[in-house]
Amino acid sequence: MAETYKLTYFNLRALAEPIRLIFAYAGVEYEDVRIEREQWPEVKENYPWGQLPVLQVGDKTLSQSNTISRYLARKFNLVGEDEWEAAKIDELADALTDLRLEWRKFFMEQDETKKAELKKVFVETTVPKYFTKFEAQIAANNGGPYLVGKNLTWVDLLTAHFLEFFEVSEPGLLEKFGALKKLRDTVFENEKIKAWLDKRPVTQF
Amino acid sequence: MAETYKLTYFNLRALAEPIRLIFAYAGVEYEDVRIEREQWPEVKENYPWGQLPVLQVGDKTLSQSNTISRYLARKFNLVGEDEWEAAKIDELADALTDLRLEWRKFFMEQDETKKAELKKVFVETTVPKYFTKFEAQIAANNGGPYLVGKNLTWVDLLTAHFLEFFEVSEPGLLEKFGALKKLRDTVFENEKIKAWLDKRPVTQF
Repeated sequence: MAETYKLTYFNLRALAEPIRLIFAYAGVEYEDVRIEREQWPEVKENYPWGQLPVLQVGDKTLSQSNTISRYLARKFNLVGEDEWEAAKIDELADALTDLRLEWRKFFMEQDETKKAELKKVFVETTVPKYFTKFEAQIAANNGGPYLVGKNLTWVDLLTAHFLEFFEVSEPGLLEKFGALKKLRDTVFENEKIKAWLDKRPVTQF
Repeated sequence: MAETYKLTYFNLRALAEPIRLIFAYAGVEYEDVRIEREQWPEVKENYPWGQLPVLQVGDKTLSQSNTISRYLARKFNLVGEDEWEAAKIDELADALTDLRLEWRKFFMEQDETKKAELKKVFVETTVPKYFTKFEAQIAANNGGPYLVGKNLTWVDLLTAHFLEFFEVSEPGLLEKFGALKKLRDTVFENEKIKAWLDKRPVTQF
């Protein structure tokens, strides 16, 4: 019997979208549950860690976005060709988490002056540092278009999503990064992905 | 031919110790390179992301502590009995990262008054929240002593290490958490682990 999948998150792309992209790319059905912010305090305690996203697989529950992505990617053969590739994918996924936590520093800042300073650091220093390393990884991977190995893996979906995500805060962020732009376009122009992008709910993040 | 492993980190337990515990438990030889803080600025650029720990496997390089642990754990059969167990282990490892980032908030704070406030939140609110969930996981796992499945996995080593690590900041932190104390003791009383603890360099963290 096929597994039943139910993904619960807020009505945002943010941390759940890489999981949705994996389902779309693999062509696997799932229930895409979106909780409104106002409902959250009421239902929060129903979730094991009091946080989202959560994936239910039959009657079992899994938390943590990258953990969910990795689990599904293993099922759907998106973890590379061997354990070394799987590990390089994990390394890049962790680097994207580090970058997202840097983004969060300015995003969460309430003081407008400090926020502007922190954003400047993110855009002018942090992003180029990380993006340069991601482009070097693509170059070392026979010039790409993918990050690890010959075929698309879950970290390509994750990266394409976060490139789009960071661009919300700073349009043009990818201007100088041709290989990353190409990666994002390759992912988003994939037929199955495109079908999902065309029908997904429109949200800011 | 057996792989050659070289692990590079600072002269600390901190982020590299779970990896060292995996090597110790698996009984696999590796080179344990420790860089002094004063040397770091000189050599930082030699490492792909400018950060440690880094594992070299033959002539290949892997970064990110949990990624390294997971890679080795897969090689040494410490990732549970199936992909679901491997995923639950990843979920708990991510939760420990979340908890460590909460710890870091007070640890890095320079203002003494703010630091004391943040530490109080960590010790009185954050730790009980996480530890209660970890204890529930042990209870649900047939009462333990391990977190996932019948046998020791890499997340037991990771958890035992971080329990010890957080206790440096707050002795007695485990007082009310019997199942976690038992997990830590079970790990640290294992013969191979004990042999490592007896000979490892003494450092504060």
